Parts: sequence; C-alpha cells; structure tokens
Amino acid sequence: MALLAGRTVLLRAGVRLGAEAATRGGNGARRFASHRVLVEPDAAAGIATIKLKNPPVNSLSLEFLTELIICLEKLENDKTFRGIILTSDCPGIFSAGLDLREMCGKNPAHYAEYWRAVQEIWLKLYLSNMVLVAAINGASPAGGCLMALTCDYRVLADNPRYRIGLNETLLGIIAPFWFKDNLVNTIGHRAADRALQLGLLFPPTEALQVGMVDQVVPEDQIHSTALSVMSQWLAIPDHARQLTKSMMRKATADHLIKQREADIQNFVSFISKDSIQKSLQVYLEKLKQKKH
Amino acid sequence: MALLAGRTVLLRAGVRLGAEAATRGGNGARRFASHRVLVEPDAAAGIATIKLKNPPVNSLSLEFLTELIICLEKLENDKTFRGIILTSDCPGIFSAGLDLREMCGKNPAHYAEYWRAVQEIWLKLYLSNMVLVAAINGASPAGGCLMALTCDYRVLADNPRYRIGLNETLLGIIAPFWFKDNLVNTIGHRAADRALQLGLLFPPTEALQVGMVDQVVPEDQIHSTALSVMSQWLAIPDHARQLTKSMMRKATADHLIKQREADIQNFVSFISKDSIQKSLQVYLEKLKQKKH
Amino acid sequence: MALLAGRTVLLRAGVRLGAEAATRGGNGARRFASHRVLVEPDAAAGIATIKLKNPPVNSLSLEFLTELIICLEKLENDKTFRGIILTSDCPGIFSAGLDLREMCGKNPAHYAEYWRAVQEIWLKLYLSNMVLVAAINGASPAGGCLMALTCDYRVLADNPRYRIGLNETLLGIIAPFWFKDNLVNTIGHRAADRALQLGLLFPPTEALQVGMVDQVVPEDQIHSTALSVMSQWLAIPDHARQLTKSMMRKATADHLIKQREADIQNFVSFISKDSIQKSLQVYLEKLKQKKH
Repeated sequence: MALLAGRTVLLRAGVRLGAEAATRGGNGARRFASHRVLVEPDAAAGIATIKLKNPPVNSLSLEFLTELIICLEKLENDKTFRGIILTSDCPGIFSAGLDLREMCGKNPAHYAEYWRAVQEIWLKLYLSNMVLVAAINGASPAGGCLMALTCDYRVLADNPRYRIGLNETLLGIIAPFWFKDNLVNTIGHRAADRALQLGLLFPPTEALQVGMVDQVVPEDQIHSTALSVMSQWLAIPDHARQLTKSMMRKATADHLIKQREADIQNFVSFISKDSIQKSLQVYLEKLKQKKH
Repeated sequence: MALLAGRTVLLRAGVRLGAEAATRGGNGARRFASHRVLVEPDAAAGIATIKLKNPPVNSLSLEFLTELIICLEKLENDKTFRGIILTSDCPGIFSAGLDLREMCGKNPAHYAEYWRAVQEIWLKLYLSNMVLVAAINGASPAGGCLMALTCDYRVLADNPRYRIGLNETLLGIIAPFWFKDNLVNTIGHRAADRALQLGLLFPPTEALQVGMVDQVVPEDQIHSTALSVMSQWLAIPDHARQLTKSMMRKATADHLIKQREADIQNFVSFISKDSIQKSLQVYLEKLKQKKH
Repeated sequence: MALLAGRTVLLRAGVRLGAEAATRGGNGARRFASHRVLVEPDAAAGIATIKLKNPPVNSLSLEFLTELIICLEKLENDKTFRGIILTSDCPGIFSAGLDLREMCGKNPAHYAEYWRAVQEIWLKLYLSNMVLVAAINGASPAGGCLMALTCDYRVLADNPRYRIGLNETLLGIIAPFWFKDNLVNTIGHRAADRALQLGLLFPPTEALQVGMVDQVVPEDQIHSTALSVMSQWLAIPDHARQLTKSMMRKATADHLIKQREADIQNFVSFISKDSIQKSLQVYLEKLKQKKH
C-alpha cells in the first residue's frame, strides 16, 4: 500500500474561445455539442461519446479544434461525466490530422493562434481527468494518431485501410518534440525512432504488435468494446486514478508547457518561409484537383 | 571493451534501529536473523536466503521493516555473502505490503518514522551491492510487489492465486512516485501507466508477459530455480557487476533521495487528515471482522 | 501533420587527424577508403558500403578508429552519399571492440587521445545525418556491439557463433554510461539492466527477441537484405528524416558531450592504475600465447 505525494497543479494557457460555442446552452447532447463535435451523453453511465464530424476527413481546422476544446472543457467541468469515448462520425477516417489550409496564405498572428490551439487540444486530452478511450474507426495519420495517443486506451477497428502512425516525414516535415514524447511513452524509444524516421503507418495487426493500439476488434464491435473497456476503467476510484494518471504524465506535459511560447515562435517562423508556403500551395492544389 | 566512470557514492539516511536486533550476536543464521526475518546462510556458496515471517501475511509493520533493514545491513557488511534470495515463510503470501495499522490512530512523529522506514527498505533493497533474487512463493500486492521489483531477478511460482502488482488505486490511494519509477524501469512507461491506473494484479502468465517477473516455474521448483539463477549472476566479477548495477539505478534512487524529507512530509500530512483516518478505521474494522 | 522545432546544432570536438588519410585523394572507392577501411561506393544509389578490415578481429586501435572517423567525415560531407552499410571484411567477426594494447604500457596523454577517439567514433556514428544500416556478419562483442547499436537498423547473419552484446562485466570492467544510454534506448531499461550486469552475449534468435537487432537472415542474404532495408529508409526525404533522427538522439548524445572531458579524465585515471595495468598485461600475454 502506498500514498500520494501532493496534488499536482498543472498550468495551462487558455485558448481564446469563440462566442459561438460558449453561448450554446440547453440540456443533454446540445449542452456539449457543436456543429462539428457531436456528443452522445449517457448520464447514467457517466460516459460521453464524442463523435468528430468535420467532413470529409476530420481535418483539425482552427474552428474544429476550438469547438473540441470547448466541448472537452464543458465535460471536464460537469461532474456527471467520468469518461469519454472518442470516435469519428466520418466513414473510414478517424482524423486526417492538422489542416494545411490553416498554415497557408495567412498571417503570423493566425499561425500563432492555430499552433496554440493544436498545443491546447493535446494538453486538454493528454491531461484530462476523465478516462479517455479511443474507438478508432478509420485511418488515423499524424494529428489523428496524436489524438489517439493521448487516450488511456486505444481500440482499433480491424480494417487494413485503417492505418495509424505519425507519418510526418513522408510529407517532408517532422513531428514536434511533444508528439515524439507521447509516442516514446507509448511504444518505447527504439520503436518510436524507427516509426518516426520512416513515417510508418501501421495496419491493425502491426499497430497492435508495436503497442500503438491496445486492442484490435471487428469493425462492428468497436463501440461495444470501447464501452466494456470504459466500465473497467470507471470501476477505479476517480481521485486515485486521476492522481496516478497525472503522476505518469506530468513530466511529459511540462516538457511542452515550459517552452510553449518558443514552440509557437518556432512554428510561425518555419511556416512563414517562402519555400514552405510554396510547397504547401502546390500540395493543396493537388488535393483540390484530386477531388474534382 | 569499456571502462568505469568513477565510483558512485550514495547517501542514505539511516533508520533509528531498535536495540533488540542490534544486540543479537552469535554465528550462522542467528547472527543475521530475528523473530520475523529468518536467514538460511550458505557461506560456502556465498548465498543467504531470507524468509519473511510476519504471519499471517507479512505485513510490513515498523518492527518488521526495522528487522529486515538490520538484516540487510549485516549481510551487506559481511563479505561472506554475495547474494540474497528473498522469499516468504508464510504460505500463499509473499507480502501483503504496508501495514495499515501503522498509519491509523498514531501521531505525526510515528507516521514520519514509519514512512522513513518504508523509504529505507526500498533504498536498501534497490541499491544493494549483492545480487537479489526474488523467489515469489505467494501473492504479492502493493508493497510486496515493490520489494520484488527491487530485485535483480524475479521468479514467480505458477499458481493463479499468486498475483503481483501495484494495486493501490483499487484501495483509493496512489503509489508514491518512486514505486512508479521502479515499475516504469521494469515494464516500461505504457504498461506501467495502465497497470498503475487500473491497479492491476497480474496472475503468473500475464505477469511474465508484461515483464513484471522474469520467470514462472512450478511451485515446487521455485527455490531450485532461484539458486540456479543466482549461480549465473554470481559468476560475474562482483566489482564490475556492482558498478554496473549502480549505474543503472542511481538516477532512480536519487529521485527519491533528493526529496526524501518532502516525501515524508507529504505522507504525514495526507495520512493525518480526518477523512483518511476515518476511511482507514472503517477498512481495518472490516479486516478484523473477516478474521472472526 | 506537424512541424519542426528549429534546427539542432550539435557541437562535436574534433579528433586530431593523421596526415596519412587526409591527403588521400582520387575518385571512387579510393577517395574514402584507407588501409583498414574499405569503401565500396554506389554513387547511383547514394550508398557507400564500409568494410572494416583490421585483421584478425577488427580491434578498434587508435589508427583504425582514426581512419574510420576520417572516412565517415568524408562521406558525411559528400552529397553523393545518403546511406552507409557498415559491415566487416574479417571472416566471422564484425568487430572485437576496443584494443587493449592501446590501454597498456602507454602514457596518460596516449590514453586520453585514445579515449577521445572512442568517444568520437560513437558520436560520429550515432549522430550521422546519413542512414546507417549494420550488416552484422560476425561476432559483435563490446565496442563491436556499440558500433552496431549506433545504426538506424541492424541485420544479423543467422549463425549461432555470431553473438552480440555488451559483455564488459565478464572481463571485470564496466561499460561507460553512454554505452548504457545507447543500449537502454534500444532494448529498454529492464533488458539493459540484465544484459549489462550479466555481460550477456546474445545469439541471433535471442538478439532478435530482446531487440538488440531488427532482423536475422541467412548469412548469404545479409548484404541484399541490408540493401533492401536501405532503399526503404532512403525513400524518406533526407531533411525531415535527419531532423527527426536528431530529435530522437540529441539528449543521449548531449549526455556525453556535456561531460566529455570528465569522462576522459575518469578513463585515464582508471586505466593508469597499477592494478589495472597488471591485469591488462596478464590478459594480453594470455592472448599472445593463444595465437602460438
């Protein structure tokens, strides 16, 4: 038996929140949800299912991130809910990750605001007091993988097209150090070294083997499995579980928190370069043409 | 080939030792043993087998911890012995961990003395210059698991009732950071995150799979296996092995050593709370009734 | 998607380079190679194969290390080459590790120069901007294992005599902390603890299992496998891969860089001891007699 070593206080810079979501009121799902973040609350069970709905691929735009941050804050402050199941409402994709359009043709202030929101969603998810279970029902590259990595448990639907990984190098860019820290904690240093350098996207069997996910199940069982996992985690007294979670994660979160502004400045000066802007424009043009 | 980087000096605060054990003299087993700590010395082999005997469940009372600390110090200072096999004399239980009675209805000075002894037994075992092999012949929750984790090698008897793990959260409390550090070193960050949050007690097959123990053997082979493992470890030149062990463990031990007093104060102020005292009293009452 | 956090600048103290290799010129293989370091360049593929040739066992003498350092510097500065396959030209042995003769009967200045070269080869290999694939075609103890551990990927020929590991304790010495750091990154803390204390040399199957190597292949397929692995790694954009590699390794390299001089002084004072010198002389005499 053993005891706690003092309550951890985590400072987190707030994100400026749009008025739209903040004034949303009412009961049940509508109290937490927004256009792009559906919430299915089960007050009796203490579980809220968040369904990401920013079609077609749940790109993490500034607006989408802001809605998600607000939703998480509301759930965190509502004692009714002790656990969140994070899943997608877009068929075949969990989330495609960051939205390149937020990084292209805008001004430095916008880039800074965007990057702060990206940091914020990671901190909110990684340090959540609630139990987070990812029900990964689609492909999960880059920022999509990152959101899954913040959860306490990851269930992946068994579909070879649902690959998961931090594939930044494939696009000629690199994952920030805090993506890396989160990955090293999850799959270890050597596997992270190889996965990050090669930008590996793991299909389900390999994702399970390397420890990127905890369980692979048939696609039609993903929600029931997530619920069953959740009930195991919710059987633990909240206070003890929360302090333990914080003890496990504090050092990793502090690594970003302590250099948050420098990390933003790095991003802004990198993304503002002419060469990077040109590359992004070319890439976005290609994406547009694909759709037509 | 490669060389050493300077002898490590580790400061360890001493524990006030009772007179009982300190005045014990004589040869052989009696020189090291006490009422609750049996010692079977094999001087020819350089191995001492310590059998924990604090019935019914080897709860780590202050007296028991003090006897164990004294025993370890004597063996550490006796050049005859190079290895310790740590096992239990109580059927079915390795050790139930900390003794709740030491944390209930006593004064702050007592709580501080107790917590210092808990820290001390961990430091003594974790930093021992001797080879430590745990022959885990019973259930090993919480503090019992911690003692096993300090050893250089863990052999577990193959009995589904002999579960091992840091199950603190199940009791509504949390493991101190140095329990966590020791566990992360042993099974990695992700497995430790899950095991600690859920308070998992692993049966033998799972304990082996996750790396909580190194080997699972039929119950009647546990001592012979421990002896065989020990002879492998004792084949290594002591000085090189000791310095290597210290190099692997120093940072983790220093993490506690550097904040030992603060860790004690945290424990005392936590355990002194009315709410905690009441919970412990209720829990102890239940335990008493179970016995009748 | 995610971005980089600023270019890493790594300071590395230079090694005084002999004139012999520095004045070597010409095209193709001869531009990079020396007596003991063969280079088979494939400019079209961007790959250079380095074959270690310091018979009989590729002991890492000061001269050999210096030639290897020069070779690596030249390749690093030649934009033609993006990847190195590191292998042995000596049958049955990848490298036996450090050369005891450099540590015996010489003066402190020599010991210091030698140790600086040992540090330098590790830093050069570990922080190389190129993709390094180890094609381990022979036994690989101690310093030989270390060189393999610096690579991005390790392929081991499937021959039970080709064991790999940091076996320093078997010789009564210990691996320096940076050998340990590199090993912990590769196989994790617990496996490194056991491997280093016991001086384990892993045969192929066990080496694969513990993560000491990434792949085991029949001996006649080792080079083709290394080439195939290399093409996978070279498919990644260099700049992104290099920055990611640096992000993964910087902290570990800095651990040595920040105390490089102290590490040299420790080595010199240790190796200069009469007792150590005598042991080394006895050991070297035995080795000589074996050969007759």
